[in-house]
Amino acid sequence: MPDAAAPAAPRADLIVTNALIVTADAGFSVIPDGALAVRDGRIAAIGPAAEIGRDAAEVIDAGGAILMPGIVNTHCHAGDSLFRGLVEDLPLEPWLQTVWKAEKAILTRETTRLGATLGLAELLLSGVTTAMDMFWFPEETARAARDLGMRVATGGIFIDFPGVDFVTMDDRIAAAKDFFAEFEGADDILPTIMPHGTYTVGPDNLAAAKALAEDHGALFCTHAAETVAEQADIANRYGRSVIRHLDHLGCLDERTVLAHCVWLDDEEIAILARTGATVSHNPVSNLKLASGIARVPDMLDAGVRVTVGTDGAISGNDLDMWMALRLAATLHRGATRRADAVSTQAALAMVTREGAAALGALDRIGSLEVGKFADMILIDTGPVHAAPLFDPMTHIVFSTAKSDVRDVFVSGRRVVRDGVLTAIDIGGTLARVRALAPAIAASIA
Amino acid sequence: MPDAAAPAAPRADLIVTNALIVTADAGFSVIPDGALAVRDGRIAAIGPAAEIGRDAAEVIDAGGAILMPGIVNTHCHAGDSLFRGLVEDLPLEPWLQTVWKAEKAILTRETTRLGATLGLAELLLSGVTTAMDMFWFPEETARAARDLGMRVATGGIFIDFPGVDFVTMDDRIAAAKDFFAEFEGADDILPTIMPHGTYTVGPDNLAAAKALAEDHGALFCTHAAETVAEQADIANRYGRSVIRHLDHLGCLDERTVLAHCVWLDDEEIAILARTGATVSHNPVSNLKLASGIARVPDMLDAGVRVTVGTDGAISGNDLDMWMALRLAATLHRGATRRADAVSTQAALAMVTREGAAALGALDRIGSLEVGKFADMILIDTGPVHAAPLFDPMTHIVFSTAKSDVRDVFVSGRRVVRDGVLTAIDIGGTLARVRALAPAIAASIA
Repeated sequence: MPDAAAPAAPRADLIVTNALIVTADAGFSVIPDGALAVRDGRIAAIGPAAEIGRDAAEVIDAGGAILMPGIVNTHCHAGDSLFRGLVEDLPLEPWLQTVWKAEKAILTRETTRLGATLGLAELLLSGVTTAMDMFWFPEETARAARDLGMRVATGGIFIDFPGVDFVTMDDRIAAAKDFFAEFEGADDILPTIMPHGTYTVGPDNLAAAKALAEDHGALFCTHAAETVAEQADIANRYGRSVIRHLDHLGCLDERTVLAHCVWLDDEEIAILARTGATVSHNPVSNLKLASGIARVPDMLDAGVRVTVGTDGAISGNDLDMWMALRLAATLHRGATRRADAVSTQAALAMVTREGAAALGALDRIGSLEVGKFADMILIDTGPVHAAPLFDPMTHIVFSTAKSDVRDVFVSGRRVVRDGVLTAIDIGGTLARVRALAPAIAASIA
Repeated sequence: MPDAAAPAAPRADLIVTNALIVTADAGFSVIPDGALAVRDGRIAAIGPAAEIGRDAAEVIDAGGAILMPGIVNTHCHAGDSLFRGLVEDLPLEPWLQTVWKAEKAILTRETTRLGATLGLAELLLSGVTTAMDMFWFPEETARAARDLGMRVATGGIFIDFPGVDFVTMDDRIAAAKDFFAEFEGADDILPTIMPHGTYTVGPDNLAAAKALAEDHGALFCTHAAETVAEQADIANRYGRSVIRHLDHLGCLDERTVLAHCVWLDDEEIAILARTGATVSHNPVSNLKLASGIARVPDMLDAGVRVTVGTDGAISGNDLDMWMALRLAATLHRGATRRADAVSTQAALAMVTREGAAALGALDRIGSLEVGKFADMILIDTGPVHAAPLFDPMTHIVFSTAKSDVRDVFVSGRRVVRDGVLTAIDIGGTLARVRALAPAIAASIA
């Protein structure tokens, strides 16, 4: 006697079909003529289009476009987009002094929200579905991300001198706890503790910041080893290089993301590998600010987790993860004269599954696999620069432009449709930014 | 008695008004709220919009967009776009052997025209109005450029072994002369003699190529000093480095464009400065192919003319002059740790007036000035990544993307309108390229 038929799976909310799917799963499998079904914001099925079928409340025919995971940007200061192109042609240290002067003059809770919306909108339009962001008033960035429908990892900022938001460390700790209270347990916000750097946060406060992160199971992110001058400064102050100093303070583990890491010796690379701390490589910023070229191939060889960030548009001068990806894949080939210094797959991993792993979220995002959130983007393969297309991963890493991102989904919700944000009208944001521009220009005059 | 009134200037054919004009003239002047009048394909007037008025057969309101000269790309192999992404992860020498295998299997006069149309279309859509191109059957590239309505510098290819087009040197010389006969004196084609390189063309043929160029007042372009291996090869063969070898053969003067020049010693840089030869810097290709990082700041300091090229999409993997420009401006800051290694203005000059000067055409193109051809582009300043916009030159160099190019004019003719080619329907080209793709993939299998 045959078994009773298995109950039919409930109907999908959304099926994207007729897509060239780049999964970024552990085997980097590619599904030609594939389809993906979404139910309750998560990927319910993925496979050949003929197997997945079209039984869904909404079916999107991708028309042969590439479907891939949303991009993960592991270092950003979205609010600094207000200052794009304002401070030019200076190396990092004097540049930062001028940036802080502008921030001090301009940033309120309201303008921070404006800048965060501007920066995060640029990221989301280009296919970034999750960004780790460090900025004053981080709850404003989190709220801006929520308005746009994207994910952000952010939280309490620590810096030893008065910032534009708070003055004392007690105030900062209280604000960080308020952030946890507001966002802990949310799907869209990954709570983080963000001391600015070893040269702006003393040892006690760094250790306190890490302890606070651990108490809340939060991520920990700081700038590290960005310039030669910073390394010399920290060695002079503490008798240890930046990475050794952070290790000595117990700040390095798998919940730690270190932005930049341009200047590392072999032993520091080994420390990163041993502790499981992530490096967020920011090549566009590192070149523009004359910081240098990070030893990415050596880090990869040592087993360090390397991810990619844009840094802020005040250094960049945009938030183009596609340019950052291209540089992550090519800069080190040129710098080391090794054509295999960073493989195509390794580069693609940096902006997808490795980025997700850095944020402790590989179980939820970073690849297209059943059970994960349906954070995914459609890449138009119609433009002239996409023909011919032999291998989709090669195309993604070496010839895709931000303007090729047609649709963006976060938890299955279409937050960008045909290149337009669906959750907010960005026109009002742009008008307010332009109205503020004369005051921004005057702030450093 | 007053003089009789001066006769009114004849009506303009076209006026572009309400534009933020970046002239790239010798003083790099900027005209806020500017206008530009075109008559008979040339710039008849340029200045404040209120002075220029609107008396023209056609008036285009730029709506605040940036109007700037068309971009000049000084090194390209447009036809190689057929092989985009085909040969990956190899250093130059083995890479080139595989490329030649694919070219040999695929290229006919017809497919060369197809590839040239594909590559040049990508360039024109991104705002490149003039490209120097080296490829088999150069007359097919010239005709493809003419179909699209853009300018190209190209002409007879010299290489010592049988190519995909001709077998003997006599055939090559005859073909080069045929090219001159067809295109000499044309406004849109800049005749050039193009020996492939010192490692593929012997001394006698290099000298003969240069003599032929001089006989016809033509440009002379070759690959030079791209890799360490090439420098070692030439030194081993001839007892002189690449640049010294070319100088010894009388190949270097102000009509000479040398692609790459990654590996130069101080004396070679001095030779380039003394002879007036131009370097076409190709940072995207040099990084991808692991060739290295050219000494651009040292060349600029020595007074060498430096311009920018994309190289072919087979190395790139696209033809994005905006990425090449951004790298020309930032890569050397990072590599030298000098934030002023290449100034914003110097970088902008490389892709405009210096590019034009390299092609002996600064009297006609390369800046927006009265009397020059109206080769110009409109850059949309509406996108999120263009807000705020403090300085248009900074914006052009550090945050403009190819997708921001809205309209392109060559000799005042609108050849791209709202991001679409006006002279040809590129859809047919793309369909033919996609149909050819399986054969291309099989060519190196």
